[in-house]
Amino acid sequence: MTRWKLVVEYDGGGFVGWQRQDNGPSVQAALEAAVAKFCGERARVWGAGRTDAGVHALGQAAHVDIRKKTTPRAVRDAINHHLRPLRVAVLSAEEADKDFNARVSARERLYRYRIVNRRAPLALERGRAWHVPYALDAAAMHEAAQALVGRHDFTTFRASECQARSPVKTLDQLSVDRDGELIAVTARARSFLHHQVRNMVGSLALVGRGTWRKADLQKALEAKDRRKGGPTAPPEGLYLVEVKY
Amino acid sequence: MTRWKLVVEYDGGGFVGWQRQDNGPSVQAALEAAVAKFCGERARVWGAGRTDAGVHALGQAAHVDIRKKTTPRAVRDAINHHLRPLRVAVLSAEEADKDFNARVSARERLYRYRIVNRRAPLALERGRAWHVPYALDAAAMHEAAQALVGRHDFTTFRASECQARSPVKTLDQLSVDRDGELIAVTARARSFLHHQVRNMVGSLALVGRGTWRKADLQKALEAKDRRKGGPTAPPEGLYLVEVKY
Repeated sequence: MTRWKLVVEYDGGGFVGWQRQDNGPSVQAALEAAVAKFCGERARVWGAGRTDAGVHALGQAAHVDIRKKTTPRAVRDAINHHLRPLRVAVLSAEEADKDFNARVSARERLYRYRIVNRRAPLALERGRAWHVPYALDAAAMHEAAQALVGRHDFTTFRASECQARSPVKTLDQLSVDRDGELIAVTARARSFLHHQVRNMVGSLALVGRGTWRKADLQKALEAKDRRKGGPTAPPEGLYLVEVKY
Repeated sequence: MTRWKLVVEYDGGGFVGWQRQDNGPSVQAALEAAVAKFCGERARVWGAGRTDAGVHALGQAAHVDIRKKTTPRAVRDAINHHLRPLRVAVLSAEEADKDFNARVSARERLYRYRIVNRRAPLALERGRAWHVPYALDAAAMHEAAQALVGRHDFTTFRASECQARSPVKTLDQLSVDRDGELIAVTARARSFLHHQVRNMVGSLALVGRGTWRKADLQKALEAKDRRKGGPTAPPEGLYLVEVKY
């Protein structure tokens, strides 16, 4: 039995999310079906993060145990072959230690949230970014975001269905950069609460529009009350970029 | 009657190309239908370049004559409203001179061709880039590309159905840059022959793979014979970025 670490890219648009569910196709089930076709084993594929429906991944990490003796290249190429025509691809496969766990062993998760800030609807970026048609002040968003960096109780930015034991997390980075009409929000932490990035982005958009100031974001954080936070930004702007071990 | 200049973005995947055709939906027909719904006029929309099926545009330019008295903002927003849910969007509309012609007045066209150079299939970039699974030497491609810059007879890189009067064109820029697994080919000229960019990219890929050297590309150009050129790169990697006047 070999434990394999996989790095996986997917377009979240066609899936109910990473995790297997009864109501539609999941990335996890797609990978497990491909593994079964490849080696005839019903192996469970465990991911580093349970991305929601519509959320994309450039570098989700996962692990799976396979009995069949094989090579990294064969694992990657065979799973990719059986994933067709789904929009999921294994970028790399490597042998991992027996105690490697994609979720628990992760030291850092990097997410990026993409906003296209312009009046015209999205043709090319539809489903790949959040379309915000009113003007956003990205510099004000970045400045306000610094109030959320550090160790805090993030209850205000936590989905009601979140299963984490504690709402206290350490946010290592939350930066906002504009490049033309594209605004990118980068969030880096060991781990995040359910919907935390999307909820933070929704509140930052209130700051960008001028509805909130940095002090309002600070107060929302301190309220430790989801009802004091801004709306949840839509899933299609969010990308799980990298998981570090 | 006002002549309007439009800048248009589209995802070429769902269209038979820019130009109206009997065999499926075109970007031109989509825009003309939206204009008709907006102002009740059957106006022809003329584009700067007839992009092929699957070719995208970040900044196609077009002109259209409209009798209705209206404003730039109304033209843009109303056409966009009626274009839904198609993946076409008018980025801007502005009043143009009576003698402005999107095709003829253009001083420069800028195209970008995107290659994703990696073993794994494309999940997020599928339909948005050419997937080349074998290693390409982008520096060698760039060096060879310089043999095509300047004023030449581009018959070798011209589609048989090309309607241009002369195969002689001046290519102002052809550069190849790598950023990780993404290779971008930038082509800039007053005008191009039909399939010229895709045919040049197909030949550059032969250089990148090591099948051709710069001298082979030079010989192919000098042969003035399409049969001496490389294959045509697929449409989904090509983007009409900007048309300058």
